[in-house]
Amino acid sequence: MESMPRRNIYLRMKTLEESRGMWREETGGLRCAAQLVPTVRSLGRVTAKPILARRSVPHYHGAAMDGFAVSACETFGASEVNPLRLEVGKSAFAVDTGDVLPEGTDSVIMIEHVEVGSGSQIEIRAAAFPWQHVRKVGEDIVAGELLLPQHHPLRPADLGALLAAGVLEVTAFRRPVAWIQPTGTELISAENAAEAGPGRIVEFNGTVLAGLVEDCQGEPFLRETIPDDYGSIKGFLAQAAASDADVVLINAGSSAGSEDYTAAAIGELGRVLVHGVTMMPGKPTVLGLIGDKPVVGVPGYPVSAIMAFEQFVRPLLYWLQGLPEPAFPGVEAVMGRKLPSRLGLEEFVRVILGRVQGRLVAMPLQRGAGVITSLTRADGLLQIPQELEGVDVDEKVRVRLLRSEEQLEHTLVMIGSHDNTIDVLANELKRRDSRVHLSSSNVGSLGGLMAVRRGQTHLAGSHLLETDTGEYNFAYIERYLKGIPVRVVQLARRQQGLLVKPGNPLQIQGIEDLARPEIRFVNRQAGAGTRILLDYFLDRQGLTAEAIKGYDQEEYTHMSVAVNVLSGRADCGMAIFAAARALGLDFIPVAEERYDLIVPESSWEDPKIRLVLDIVVSDSFRSMVQKMGGYDVRSSGRVMGVWDGTGWSGRG
Amino acid sequence: MESMPRRNIYLRMKTLEESRGMWREETGGLRCAAQLVPTVRSLGRVTAKPILARRSVPHYHGAAMDGFAVSACETFGASEVNPLRLEVGKSAFAVDTGDVLPEGTDSVIMIEHVEVGSGSQIEIRAAAFPWQHVRKVGEDIVAGELLLPQHHPLRPADLGALLAAGVLEVTAFRRPVAWIQPTGTELISAENAAEAGPGRIVEFNGTVLAGLVEDCQGEPFLRETIPDDYGSIKGFLAQAAASDADVVLINAGSSAGSEDYTAAAIGELGRVLVHGVTMMPGKPTVLGLIGDKPVVGVPGYPVSAIMAFEQFVRPLLYWLQGLPEPAFPGVEAVMGRKLPSRLGLEEFVRVILGRVQGRLVAMPLQRGAGVITSLTRADGLLQIPQELEGVDVDEKVRVRLLRSEEQLEHTLVMIGSHDNTIDVLANELKRRDSRVHLSSSNVGSLGGLMAVRRGQTHLAGSHLLETDTGEYNFAYIERYLKGIPVRVVQLARRQQGLLVKPGNPLQIQGIEDLARPEIRFVNRQAGAGTRILLDYFLDRQGLTAEAIKGYDQEEYTHMSVAVNVLSGRADCGMAIFAAARALGLDFIPVAEERYDLIVPESSWEDPKIRLVLDIVVSDSFRSMVQKMGGYDVRSSGRVMGVWDGTGWSGRG
Repeated sequence: MESMPRRNIYLRMKTLEESRGMWREETGGLRCAAQLVPTVRSLGRVTAKPILARRSVPHYHGAAMDGFAVSACETFGASEVNPLRLEVGKSAFAVDTGDVLPEGTDSVIMIEHVEVGSGSQIEIRAAAFPWQHVRKVGEDIVAGELLLPQHHPLRPADLGALLAAGVLEVTAFRRPVAWIQPTGTELISAENAAEAGPGRIVEFNGTVLAGLVEDCQGEPFLRETIPDDYGSIKGFLAQAAASDADVVLINAGSSAGSEDYTAAAIGELGRVLVHGVTMMPGKPTVLGLIGDKPVVGVPGYPVSAIMAFEQFVRPLLYWLQGLPEPAFPGVEAVMGRKLPSRLGLEEFVRVILGRVQGRLVAMPLQRGAGVITSLTRADGLLQIPQELEGVDVDEKVRVRLLRSEEQLEHTLVMIGSHDNTIDVLANELKRRDSRVHLSSSNVGSLGGLMAVRRGQTHLAGSHLLETDTGEYNFAYIERYLKGIPVRVVQLARRQQGLLVKPGNPLQIQGIEDLARPEIRFVNRQAGAGTRILLDYFLDRQGLTAEAIKGYDQEEYTHMSVAVNVLSGRADCGMAIFAAARALGLDFIPVAEERYDLIVPESSWEDPKIRLVLDIVVSDSFRSMVQKMGGYDVRSSGRVMGVWDGTGWSGRG
Repeated sequence: MESMPRRNIYLRMKTLEESRGMWREETGGLRCAAQLVPTVRSLGRVTAKPILARRSVPHYHGAAMDGFAVSACETFGASEVNPLRLEVGKSAFAVDTGDVLPEGTDSVIMIEHVEVGSGSQIEIRAAAFPWQHVRKVGEDIVAGELLLPQHHPLRPADLGALLAAGVLEVTAFRRPVAWIQPTGTELISAENAAEAGPGRIVEFNGTVLAGLVEDCQGEPFLRETIPDDYGSIKGFLAQAAASDADVVLINAGSSAGSEDYTAAAIGELGRVLVHGVTMMPGKPTVLGLIGDKPVVGVPGYPVSAIMAFEQFVRPLLYWLQGLPEPAFPGVEAVMGRKLPSRLGLEEFVRVILGRVQGRLVAMPLQRGAGVITSLTRADGLLQIPQELEGVDVDEKVRVRLLRSEEQLEHTLVMIGSHDNTIDVLANELKRRDSRVHLSSSNVGSLGGLMAVRRGQTHLAGSHLLETDTGEYNFAYIERYLKGIPVRVVQLARRQQGLLVKPGNPLQIQGIEDLARPEIRFVNRQAGAGTRILLDYFLDRQGLTAEAIKGYDQEEYTHMSVAVNVLSGRADCGMAIFAAARALGLDFIPVAEERYDLIVPESSWEDPKIRLVLDIVVSDSFRSMVQKMGGYDVRSSGRVMGVWDGTGWSGRG
């Protein structure tokens, strides 16, 4: 195995702006080769030369209407009182739209304005103007004129104009080819995913990068994964650099120093421009040139890889085609909560976006560079400049859109407690109205009420037990939503219980067992309804938090609690039955509780909320939820109470 | 030849809104068949079912950093003053990022925070928190959870999430297949374009429609052209309706009643929903169903065809994929001139758009449904509702964008006289800065000055002769641009003359011959510099307009005058040498004149104007213009005068 010449960890990291500037400087002038492309197959290609019309359009004087072609001057004097007769075949000629104008004629009289008389005569009651209803030569295009300039991406109508003007081939830039080289000894291909044991990861960054290349009208050339040792990387890099590809993307493996291998190998074979960018995710990006071939060391974490692609590869793919880098569409939004960010790092935060009470609100999602669902679930991307220490709540921010702007109007924001039926609801919404999208943020029941209070959500899911009354949510609403009218709609009653490994190896029977010293518990975060429920039962058993090992280990969803148990990180956790069932865990019932939707009065008439309410009373929804197990949906959709901001009515 | 059952011309035309409503009602619920697609090839496809995660991501507890895996509780107490030693292989295990966490460990200490001691020991100076630097099972995705809802178009990041979660195939809607059937006996295929004599037209609507289908992620199935008689149309329609295609587009030929054939044939084989829509272009659109297969009779004129596609086929192609019809992006602009429109017709007007003095100004282009360049040259599309009789100058209008909004900021608007060097300039601008686009409107020199006066253009081309002084433009600026400072920049001196058929069959020697009774002249429009020049020479010869046959036949460009002569519509016209040369006509020189760029002071510092001024003094531009013939470019770029709104300085 060849050894790397030197290890050079971000010795001189560059800012995003510097890096983009250098990259543009060094690669902005590169162009793909030009090639002749048949016009009929040139959609989306970019012209490499100006295109001149080969012929005029129309190329003959033609009738623009069905009727009779005449010589206008022979019709002068015709009028209602003085009709004129013309001999068909001599001074009038029947023509259909598109027919050549017969010799000696210069205008067309519409068939509707002609009396077809006896024999071979027609009668007209108005004179024709010269060239009326005639499509004249060159009316659309004149031979020799500039039809399209160079550096123009061809659209469907352009192809029509080209063909009409006799241009059957165009000189266009070749589509840029991107050599995509995954590296990493731990990677296995998607086809073998079923065999991926611990420590083995399905290679998917390559497919993501290939898709991104296609979105930029490039041609991905996705290679087999290679080991992430220095020798392999250098060898394949040399091969890629010598290939016909226009840009080489080498996707870092997760092995120690894998990104440094890329930088070192580029340094040996060519020049490293940038090694490390002060952006997050995407810091370990490497930019270089081997000869004049651009090489990008793309970081290994999926979100980092995508951010690096968008900042450096995307512009390059456009430049190679002679196009400017298109701006990302963006909107102005207000920040839903305070978000600190590290000074000196340009941070890209994934957010959900929804229009609530007239304001477009951005709520941040998870920040981990490894969490690809933070991108798939996001509606937008917030770039926090490196000069800022973060963004304040209610601050105006510019957010790049990951969905179209019109879709935001159809985005239903749900912040609060997590329940598996929300997945069913999200899908039903989309099925019934494909415009509607549910963006959810799981912050627990109390977090949901806070979001309602701040006008940040269309609805909240909540199951906060009133320990003194056995009721749910009402007292919390009274305490936290003073002056904010809401309606409380039951979504379902559901079973909460203890999740344990299949077969219950530690023989856990109930809450009282949680104090056993050998049992490792996993908890929900403070403010979660499930945590309040647990505390209630601990209290009833006379147990304190200190008595429970793992009480301070917090997770944010039922499913996360379940995977903690499944993976052996914990022996036991409290969650709903559906979570146990989804992962095949055993379930020890503790209580049945009510899970409500808290709908602010301000969104009660919103068509998206109407749709939600239609769905939750539908048979299809109820039967899907029942199939998950652990739910009682007989009262789904029932309004449990109407809070006017100071008091209740209709408490059921 | 089979005969059509009845002729039914727009008996009950429907409004655009009615037609779209009926179409949605009847076809909005249709879906393409669902099929299994390998995830790696599913980019852009739309999910037909909800997709649940098959496995958790990560599916094992893994190191998130390079370092040593330890059991956190064994490190408690370690500190700067009280370092702790751990035995490698027993209580500490070397791990790289992504490695499986060894049995019994629950956290990772970064390599940077470890002293590697002698032998097999490491030393740490801080305790580890449980689960620090560990990527826990399910941190990103939990097995069983909803990964993506149905009716979701797959983006690159989605493919990553799917592969990571073990979803190797997705159930997606098939791409909708559109059977595209050109009709028209006069049509010949693009390959045979060279042979297209008078009356023969190259089929290009099919290619345009195919491109539009592709833009909607559909699959075009472009068929050979068939004759536009009733029997052929009905026969092929039956065949198309019985095929696997999801929608049938039958493009009308230009023969009489061709659109009616489509309606009648659909009526015989199925149901006609709409025959004629009150829109323009696009009126002869036919909508129908054969069985439950949607059939669209697409009008024959290219702009009509595209408008009909966008209003009816585009939404259908999205519905078939389970997606809502995406809105077209639009902007608010002010109307550059009054535009009448017919009451009762929804009109689509092609406009150029540019930001001039802070306002986005829309200037209408030609309106003919047959003029495809009205679309290729347009920056936007203005929809005038059928309830309106038009739009007033300076009225605020919503314009649909045909280029991206950011491109508008780089659009240079030039209104005024037409000169062939403007083509060269337009291409040079694009070549030097691919963002810059020249949108021009040819309204003559005087029209250009008016556009400057109204703040509608970045610059104007003008060559208005002062008949008393022999100077150009200055007196007109004094008269029409009072209070509006401009600079006058010479673009070129150029030859104007008479264009005649090759060989000059009528032996025209000069202006004096125009009065010969057998000579048919073609003129330029009032306000054109060339017309003023002609009038000047007629006056010098003592000739009046009445003496010239064809004096009232007006064209708007030099090239249009040239094609009139070439096609025999006229024997002679006045234009620049470049126009004669482009079409191979003979040229009888009359005068050399100055053609200036009139640049309002308000756009003088605009970077796009800077670029224009750089180009016109460049050797490359000058040599390209010189090659066209008839130009003197030695003083190109020279500032001829600076007008401050009341007086001149720097008159050269």
